Amino acid sequence: MTHFLPKGFRFAGVTCGIKTRAGAKDLTLIVSESPAVAAGVYTQNQVVAAPVVLCRSRTPMNTARAIVVNSGNANACTGTQGDADALRMCDLVAEGCSKSLADQVAADQVLVMSTGVIGRLMPMSKVEAGIRQASEALAVGEPAFLDASDGILTTDAGRKVTSRSCAVAGREIHIAGMAKGAGMIGPNMATMLCCILTDALLTAEQSQRMLTAAANKSFNNISVEGHTSTNDTMVLMANGAAGGGALTGAEEAAFAEHLEAMCIELAKQIPADGEGATHLIEISVTGAQTETDARTISKEVANSNLVKSAVFGGDPNWGRIVSAAGYAGVPIETKRLDLQINGIPLFKSGEPIAFDAKTASRSIKENHTTLIELNVGSGTGACKHWTSDLTLDYVRFNSEYTT
Amino acid sequence: MTHFLPKGFRFAGVTCGIKTRAGAKDLTLIVSESPAVAAGVYTQNQVVAAPVVLCRSRTPMNTARAIVVNSGNANACTGTQGDADALRMCDLVAEGCSKSLADQVAADQVLVMSTGVIGRLMPMSKVEAGIRQASEALAVGEPAFLDASDGILTTDAGRKVTSRSCAVAGREIHIAGMAKGAGMIGPNMATMLCCILTDALLTAEQSQRMLTAAANKSFNNISVEGHTSTNDTMVLMANGAAGGGALTGAEEAAFAEHLEAMCIELAKQIPADGEGATHLIEISVTGAQTETDARTISKEVANSNLVKSAVFGGDPNWGRIVSAAGYAGVPIETKRLDLQINGIPLFKSGEPIAFDAKTASRSIKENHTTLIELNVGSGTGACKHWTSDLTLDYVRFNSEYTT
Repeated sequence: MTHFLPKGFRFAGVTCGIKTRAGAKDLTLIVSESPAVAAGVYTQNQVVAAPVVLCRSRTPMNTARAIVVNSGNANACTGTQGDADALRMCDLVAEGCSKSLADQVAADQVLVMSTGVIGRLMPMSKVEAGIRQASEALAVGEPAFLDASDGILTTDAGRKVTSRSCAVAGREIHIAGMAKGAGMIGPNMATMLCCILTDALLTAEQSQRMLTAAANKSFNNISVEGHTSTNDTMVLMANGAAGGGALTGAEEAAFAEHLEAMCIELAKQIPADGEGATHLIEISVTGAQTETDARTISKEVANSNLVKSAVFGGDPNWGRIVSAAGYAGVPIETKRLDLQINGIPLFKSGEPIAFDAKTASRSIKENHTTLIELNVGSGTGACKHWTSDLTLDYVRFNSEYTT
Repeated sequence: MTHFLPKGFRFAGVTCGIKTRAGAKDLTLIVSESPAVAAGVYTQNQVVAAPVVLCRSRTPMNTARAIVVNSGNANACTGTQGDADALRMCDLVAEGCSKSLADQVAADQVLVMSTGVIGRLMPMSKVEAGIRQASEALAVGEPAFLDASDGILTTDAGRKVTSRSCAVAGREIHIAGMAKGAGMIGPNMATMLCCILTDALLTAEQSQRMLTAAANKSFNNISVEGHTSTNDTMVLMANGAAGGGALTGAEEAAFAEHLEAMCIELAKQIPADGEGATHLIEISVTGAQTETDARTISKEVANSNLVKSAVFGGDPNWGRIVSAAGYAGVPIETKRLDLQINGIPLFKSGEPIAFDAKTASRSIKENHTTLIELNVGSGTGACKHWTSDLTLDYVRFNSEYTT
């Protein structure tokens, strides 16, 4: 697969020993050759990691130059030393990039993300060596991009990348993204990280608005076990290297549409590769009174262990789905409830209907994606949510004693 | 163990074939010899089973005579036929009791509870035979009480009963309770059912107020996987057979205290016997701004699969607990966060502290109850919540194909 990489970005992904697994890449650096606008969306956890506090204070911004990401340590619940370490990472990136690019990069032009074990101080001598090494390795092109996308992973089974080239306002624009999923280091907790890079010319305000909208249609609608991390961070960097003026009106709308589609593509890779997952479950809720209500319902179904373990077992146990929708705390018209699994109707207008359980079970077992379509009334609110099934391997991974 | 049974109640628990397991009791009848007040608290699911709709419309009431409970079929998502079947069960109880007690019992003096598989019509010929049989078997005394408490179980490993005798206002009053826990029939979904019986003299309004308060301190603070059932029902019946006048003021307060303690005792038996559970987890949250905030946090920690699987594995993984508290959506003072597991301090004033991980792990492994104490600030809001751990057996039970 050839990726459509935005112009004017350099990448590196190196191994510096933050992760204990030998040879695993654990430090990623992404640098824009010119100042870029950057927008961010962050975890809504009240307990936030040091790098989240730092990035939140900097975005949206007009002068971003670099994103540094480490995996293996979340720098969360690390007190005042953690804050100092996140700032120190920016200093080190500024220093390394200024040297390798022969160009001045300032510490406050750097964004930081961390993922991994909670509550341990960062191994700063390793981080320092890693940032130096990454600064020297910075390169354009696909191998460096893939190295960078590997450096942010934890126990993800595979890398999560996507890219596209699109014509907006007569210009060829590129967007590339990388994400990490629900992995465990330590093992500890799932963190979602995502970097989206584009050579389109956007204002900081524009990029923030579009990123927030895209996140609400994609990354905010996925879950593995519903445990919001202290470190979730998604950043969009736009450096304008594609040329031309800032996108306005219909151009912005066209770009936003590409951005949203790309984010959904990337976001779905996370539950598809959830810990121990054997199925990607898509929950499509329609007929709710508002989009917010539809989101609440789809999220509640997605977080039901009973629904998730039924899918693991290939059990078309629709009572679990309907009852999960019922306790979401938003209005439901029970006499208009319709449910289909993989296109097979199981419940219609609030009454059970006859179906062939063996056929339904076989359909769940034979397809990697399980599609749950639930209509909850006569409203226009709709939402899609993606999650993974709850499997024996999920419990095995997460109950292993490693603290 | 000898139980303190309230005067004036008769019990029966019989086998009528609603459950497929041979010989399993599946129909319970509880009758007060004189009209009793009855109060109820019910599931907050928007999708409610037919018996819940019926009982909700009848309580609080002054003239209750009987509670009939069947296990093996939830009579949920069964449309209009389900409503008719629930009413028919009341008719059958009235008929059977009027005959066996030589006393007129009316159909609208009967309450109904069902638990079991969702979305299947009730096997009414079996139910009819069961109610007839139970009416004839009604008896006072412990064997009948225990039969009745067995008839409401599903896949519970053991019966859940408690009772006490207490002196209130110079009178000897008895309270007995039975509950069922998170079981699967089919397997389908967990239902919590509970009947509390007393020979105290209470008004309907009084009994409803005290039952609601006790539920908020007990059954509303337990979970196995957080999936609220369509059938949850808890009923208190008070027939005044202990003699004396209605309880007022300090007498009511004394009774309420006994009721709450008893409900907590009974409620804790449910997660302790949760599907596949190897640990009862008690989450005690203090320092929140309000009791509601404390409840929100303790519930969020209790529903975290990462916390629950860490306890299963004996992993003192405190980062999972702190981060779950953080995403509960209520204010937390991160610099005042303190966490102890089984009395061992792991996190203090928002900073990680050194602890012996092996000792902490051994403590979790060697005790059936894991005590998580979390202080989240300087407020006075506090709440306790009880849950079970997430184990390989939980996933095995709930992924078996049986629809």
